[in-house]
Amino acid sequence: MIRARRITQRPAAEDEHKPASNELHPEIRLIPIALANDIKPGDSIAEKLLQSLRQKEIEFEPGDILVVKHKIVSKAEGRMVDLATIKSSASAAWAKKYKLDARVIELALRESRSVIRRKNGVLITETRHGFICANSGVDVSNVDGGRHALLLPTDPDLSARDLHRELKKRTALSIPVLITDSFGRPWREGLVDFCIGIAGMKALRDDRGRRDPHGYKLQASLEAVADELAGAAALVCGKLNRTPACIIRGFPYQPARGRTRDLLRPAANDLFR
Amino acid sequence: MIRARRITQRPAAEDEHKPASNELHPEIRLIPIALANDIKPGDSIAEKLLQSLRQKEIEFEPGDILVVKHKIVSKAEGRMVDLATIKSSASAAWAKKYKLDARVIELALRESRSVIRRKNGVLITETRHGFICANSGVDVSNVDGGRHALLLPTDPDLSARDLHRELKKRTALSIPVLITDSFGRPWREGLVDFCIGIAGMKALRDDRGRRDPHGYKLQASLEAVADELAGAAALVCGKLNRTPACIIRGFPYQPARGRTRDLLRPAANDLFR
Repeated sequence: MIRARRITQRPAAEDEHKPASNELHPEIRLIPIALANDIKPGDSIAEKLLQSLRQKEIEFEPGDILVVKHKIVSKAEGRMVDLATIKSSASAAWAKKYKLDARVIELALRESRSVIRRKNGVLITETRHGFICANSGVDVSNVDGGRHALLLPTDPDLSARDLHRELKKRTALSIPVLITDSFGRPWREGLVDFCIGIAGMKALRDDRGRRDPHGYKLQASLEAVADELAGAAALVCGKLNRTPACIIRGFPYQPARGRTRDLLRPAANDLFR
Repeated sequence: MIRARRITQRPAAEDEHKPASNELHPEIRLIPIALANDIKPGDSIAEKLLQSLRQKEIEFEPGDILVVKHKIVSKAEGRMVDLATIKSSASAAWAKKYKLDARVIELALRESRSVIRRKNGVLITETRHGFICANSGVDVSNVDGGRHALLLPTDPDLSARDLHRELKKRTALSIPVLITDSFGRPWREGLVDFCIGIAGMKALRDDRGRRDPHGYKLQASLEAVADELAGAAALVCGKLNRTPACIIRGFPYQPARGRTRDLLRPAANDLFR
C-alpha cells in the first residue's frame, strides 16, 4: 500500500536505479529545519517541524528522509531530570577528582547496562539500548542552562516509528525517520552524529557478494548508511542555533521497517569491549 | 592573498555567519562526480575531475569542498602492488585458518606501525600514518579484479595539498580537499567513510566554551566535521559505480592549512588501545 502510493505519487522514483545519464547517484540535498521555540513535554514534533517548513515554503517530497536530533524527541517525551533531585553516591569521589558533575555521572550509571571504561575522567557505558557512548548519552547542554539533564529516549526506534506514522498521517507520505546523537569514537578526536533510532528504511546497505566494475566480488561492503546520514545531517543541524532537524533529499534508501539493532555489533563479535 | 581572492570573488561568503533569514545554516548540496575511466598511475586527478564536471556543465564555485575516495589518489600515485610478488610469511597460517588472502595480510602487516587486535579473522592495525583500521587500509576491491592490492597514499595530507594546489591553478579558487577511506568501527556494524587526508580547511570545529541558546557553556563540543563530510560524501559516491568524488556545496568550513593529525587521538589519551 505504501509502496504503491509512493510509486503513484512519484513516477521518477523508479529512475533511482536506472539513471538516464551516466550518473548513478543523484545529487543529494540537506535542508535544515529550524524551530523558533523550544520543544516542551507533550509537544508534537511532527506539527512543529511542518509548521517551520510551511513558513519557509518547503514541503516534504516522496523520497525525503527526516533526521532529528534526539534532544527534541527526549524533550517531547519528558525525559528531563531535575539535577537537584539526584543524590550522587559511590561515584561522587571519582567525579570530584575530575571536576565532573557527580549528579550527571550518577544518572549516567543509572541509565547504563554496563561500564565499558572509567578512566581519566571519561565514563564510557553501554546504555540499556545497547549504545556504547560517554555518560550513557546523559547531557546538560541545550536543555535549560544547567538545571535539568536530558536522557536518551526510552526506545528511540519506537519514537522514530511514532514520528514516521504521524508524518504519514499529516503528509500522506512515507518519510523514513532517523534520530541522532553525538558520540565520541575510540582513536579519533571529535564527536560525530550517529543514528540511535530509525523507522522506514534499512540502517545498513549490504553490497556483499555484488561485483565491482572490475568483476571483483565485494567482501566487506556492508555500509552503515544510517550513520552516514546522521553525520551528514549534523553538517546543517547546529548546537549553537535552533536547528534540530533536517531533510535529506535524494538518497536512494531501501524502504523497510528499520531497526537500530542492526547497527549494533553483538558483544561476542566485538574486539573492543 | 588567497583570502583576499576569495573575498573578491565571493562577496556572499561573508554572509556565512550573518544569515539574512532565521536560517543559520544554509542548505548543503552533495554533487557526485563520476569518472568514465579508471585512474592510472601518473594521471592528473584534477584534470579528470574537471573534465567530468565540464561534461555535466558543472563548475566549482567558491565555498565548495572536494571529497575524493583515496582509491583514485592511490592509483594516480602508483600505490598498486602485484599480489603475485608477495610471499606471505609468519601470518600465513593465521590467514589460512580464516580463509583470508595471506598476501593481503602480509602487506597489511608491512604497512602497519603496530597491531591493535588480531582475532577471529579480523586484523586491526595502526598504519604508519596513525590510522587505526582493518588491514592497514590495504584493499583489493575496485582495483583490477584481484591481481593487485592498493595501499593508502604515503602521505594523504600531502596528496590533498597537491590536489588543492592543482585545482587552484586550474580554477583560481581555493577548494578544500578531503581524501576518504571506508573504516569499520568498534561496537557498531557497517563501514563508514572517514577523512584520511585534508587540505584547505580545519578538520575539527571547536565550539567548546561557547554558549548554547540557554546560556549553558558547551564543554564537549569538538565536532569532527571532516569525518562527517567524508560520511556525507559516501552517500553519493559508490563502490559499485564509478563515482569516486563529489562536491560538497554550502558547508561553512573554517579555512586553514588543515591536517589529519588533528583527528587522531594521541595514544596516551585513548582508552581503547
